[in-house]
Amino acid sequence: MAKQNRTAITPTRDTDYNEWFQQVIKGADLAENAPVRGCMIIRPHGYALWEAVQKAMDRRFKETGHENAYFPLLIPLRFLEKEADHVEGFAKEMAVVTHHRLEGKDGKLVPAGELEEPLVIRPTSETIIGEAFARWIRSYRDLPLKINQWANVMRWEMRPRLFLRTSEFLWQEGHTAHATEEEAREEVMTMLEVYREIVEEHMAIPVICGAKSAGERFPGAVDTFTIEAMMQDGKALQSGTSHYLGQNFAKAADIRYQDAKGDWEHCHTTSWGTSTRLIGGLIMTHSDDDGLRVPPRMAPEHVVIVPIMRDDSQRDMVMEYAEKVAAQLRDVRFDDERTRVRVDSRLIQSSEKRWDWVRKGAPIILEVGPRDIEEGKAAFTRRDQVREKKQFLTIDEIAGNLEDTLWNIQSTLFDQAKEYRAARSRDDITTREEFEAYFNELKGNTFNATGGFVKAWWCESAESEESLKELAVTVRCIPLDQPGGTGTCVLTGAAATRMAIFAKSY
Amino acid sequence: MAKQNRTAITPTRDTDYNEWFQQVIKGADLAENAPVRGCMIIRPHGYALWEAVQKAMDRRFKETGHENAYFPLLIPLRFLEKEADHVEGFAKEMAVVTHHRLEGKDGKLVPAGELEEPLVIRPTSETIIGEAFARWIRSYRDLPLKINQWANVMRWEMRPRLFLRTSEFLWQEGHTAHATEEEAREEVMTMLEVYREIVEEHMAIPVICGAKSAGERFPGAVDTFTIEAMMQDGKALQSGTSHYLGQNFAKAADIRYQDAKGDWEHCHTTSWGTSTRLIGGLIMTHSDDDGLRVPPRMAPEHVVIVPIMRDDSQRDMVMEYAEKVAAQLRDVRFDDERTRVRVDSRLIQSSEKRWDWVRKGAPIILEVGPRDIEEGKAAFTRRDQVREKKQFLTIDEIAGNLEDTLWNIQSTLFDQAKEYRAARSRDDITTREEFEAYFNELKGNTFNATGGFVKAWWCESAESEESLKELAVTVRCIPLDQPGGTGTCVLTGAAATRMAIFAKSY
Repeated sequence: MAKQNRTAITPTRDTDYNEWFQQVIKGADLAENAPVRGCMIIRPHGYALWEAVQKAMDRRFKETGHENAYFPLLIPLRFLEKEADHVEGFAKEMAVVTHHRLEGKDGKLVPAGELEEPLVIRPTSETIIGEAFARWIRSYRDLPLKINQWANVMRWEMRPRLFLRTSEFLWQEGHTAHATEEEAREEVMTMLEVYREIVEEHMAIPVICGAKSAGERFPGAVDTFTIEAMMQDGKALQSGTSHYLGQNFAKAADIRYQDAKGDWEHCHTTSWGTSTRLIGGLIMTHSDDDGLRVPPRMAPEHVVIVPIMRDDSQRDMVMEYAEKVAAQLRDVRFDDERTRVRVDSRLIQSSEKRWDWVRKGAPIILEVGPRDIEEGKAAFTRRDQVREKKQFLTIDEIAGNLEDTLWNIQSTLFDQAKEYRAARSRDDITTREEFEAYFNELKGNTFNATGGFVKAWWCESAESEESLKELAVTVRCIPLDQPGGTGTCVLTGAAATRMAIFAKSY
Repeated sequence: MAKQNRTAITPTRDTDYNEWFQQVIKGADLAENAPVRGCMIIRPHGYALWEAVQKAMDRRFKETGHENAYFPLLIPLRFLEKEADHVEGFAKEMAVVTHHRLEGKDGKLVPAGELEEPLVIRPTSETIIGEAFARWIRSYRDLPLKINQWANVMRWEMRPRLFLRTSEFLWQEGHTAHATEEEAREEVMTMLEVYREIVEEHMAIPVICGAKSAGERFPGAVDTFTIEAMMQDGKALQSGTSHYLGQNFAKAADIRYQDAKGDWEHCHTTSWGTSTRLIGGLIMTHSDDDGLRVPPRMAPEHVVIVPIMRDDSQRDMVMEYAEKVAAQLRDVRFDDERTRVRVDSRLIQSSEKRWDWVRKGAPIILEVGPRDIEEGKAAFTRRDQVREKKQFLTIDEIAGNLEDTLWNIQSTLFDQAKEYRAARSRDDITTREEFEAYFNELKGNTFNATGGFVKAWWCESAESEESLKELAVTVRCIPLDQPGGTGTCVLTGAAATRMAIFAKSY
């Protein structure tokens, strides 16, 4: 097969990393740019990945005592004005609704019906949910209040990139209110762990859990915690955050409760969120030069069966066999469900189909032709071993091993990503000189460009964080997992009690 | 109990139907008005009902070969201009985004960064999905293309009403493209049947399936089919529609495919949708003067256990018993899942709790107190029999009958709604005089006001449909189920071949 000699995606990661990312998305039919700049159309194969994230997360949210609700898309300007810090911090680029009608004029449509007060499309729902919490909470008996919302949000992006940074994106935002700091902080860490679990155990993306530095904290938060993943170009992707907001938001939004003694107290609130950005992280973590690779727990199809026939006369016979194989495999359970098996009956060349599913990242591809029928066999390809020799296995063998094979692919993808991160991480950089040399080497945007995570002692001073800007490097997090003891700050030489992860980032 | 003597909701349906509806929603914590006029906040108990609709529908959509995708919220004006009919028809009241930034000015935030082309928040995604279909479809091999989207949409409402008519609402919209009219028409009827199935069999709302008249058809559609439900004030609620769009939209959006001979043809397209309006329908169909009643298949909680204790010393003992009962009941399966049982451990009066769950419509409420423990009993209330005497049953009896009881409540609610509809339907009106007299009697907006469905022969002329306007009556549908033969039009006296359903409507 001609394609065996070249990659299924052009260019390769090494040639042009950014363009490779676009082509992986295109080759797997995941998403495309929408007619409105900065927005995207999420195609079915991409949306199925988001549905897998939603399903796994939603179950864990409910198991941890949260309820879903829905708050309005549009937010009055006065809500944002209340929260000056918040607005200054990140929310200036917003879509503003100023009219509520269109009228025909000279064969064109023009805005009419100007609103008395402009409305913004939610960049996040902090303010509008805060207003509701203030009405709903009266007594300590109403606490804790633990709400999640699945929604679209919008932040006008000047440099959009599919999944990673789009003007509109899909996300979930959790918002909770508690009587005590202790309970609110416990909630923050519980949700960080839920994120870690889903991202590592379902998406097979290794992450570092840690606290954000003062400079990277959510505006208004007392503490922000994050899960940070490494992409294949060595950059970090913030993949989920969980914030302890103290009483700051409760004071701004007047969220108070009457305690058992009858005194009024401000609540301690939290918020936490993840978005379709996670799908960008999955693509950049697992894809190779042949396209996407989907961890089995996330895969819309675990097994794709490609029927092969020389001509139309063989069609019925081969299709019947393919459906029989599919039925047998669907009896196998994986991850508490029946395996998802698809027979690709499209009227296109079978070699085209095979490479299509390689690019789409199906964990297992089986090819079945007339000769396989009597032997009860199939040509078996694991997506993570697509460049190795095809195996010809009996269907009984395949079915018998299917559950194990899928778990093995799942852990292989996770392990490969973990090894990759280890190979591009440094913990031996101790001086600013070495630090600058390391990050200055980072050139272009290719897969192999030097750069990655530097783990080093840090004094946590505002000045030292500010000084990173000229290197376009940020503190990604101060890992929860610390060695203890003290060290010398890699940036300033001052005494330090904790180590931090430094990296370039998306 | 004092409350036994009065209703749990004030006012009653009979006194003020519209206000009763608001109070049912409030009493069950389903939703509330948002700070932005016409928008709503869907509270957890209301959102759980929507999740139940989503779950049931999404499964059926997938089983019938559809895939979910996501299209952008914002639509460029030029897309709407292309589709002049479409715009004239219904889509003028739309939220228009004209700026992409906010700037501080004199301590206020003001819109800045004016867009070159204004964008509207989707009132429906027909145009933007059409543009994508035109790019995705090249060959007959790409057909059928069957997509669904779960999304929020917006149509500026001047007379909003929670769930039934809100500026922003949640919905699903299916969009499909086919090679032939026959296949497209089959799709339209398949999805109408999916809607009927979910609405009747899950939501327990009886509906009449039929075709829309020319005057009520979706703008641009060749045929619109609908499921029409009757609310308790005798008005009709259009609860779901499925459209055969012919080649009209395909021509406007240039959706073409190359057939097997290499000729280019326009596709035949369909669209179909349902929304959070269904939740309004559920409330108005099943609620009584004590609040909401939720059909068990839709219920967030099948059974709520209310622990009763005289004082704190009994708390541990009663709570332990309540949890034991809950565990036993959860082992019972209903509708292919474990039953959903909730112990209400809130720190409020138990009688308050009981009435709270009556208003929230939990199908079964159990009260357990210290005396029940040794006998292994509970006070058992069916929501649909809340005004009858409480039964004291053993937990074994309750568990043994639980599945049957839930199915019985499900069918009871459906049967009651069907009987109610029959009682308020007339098929004996044969002249315009009788017809006008019947609808003119309809006064005020109370539960008992005369009015309902009139089934009568109709000539289907545009003039006769136009003449209904002065009565504020519309043709709800021409039922699929027809008696055959011919008759005399109730409006004009002309010959008619089909009967129609006439009613006032939401």
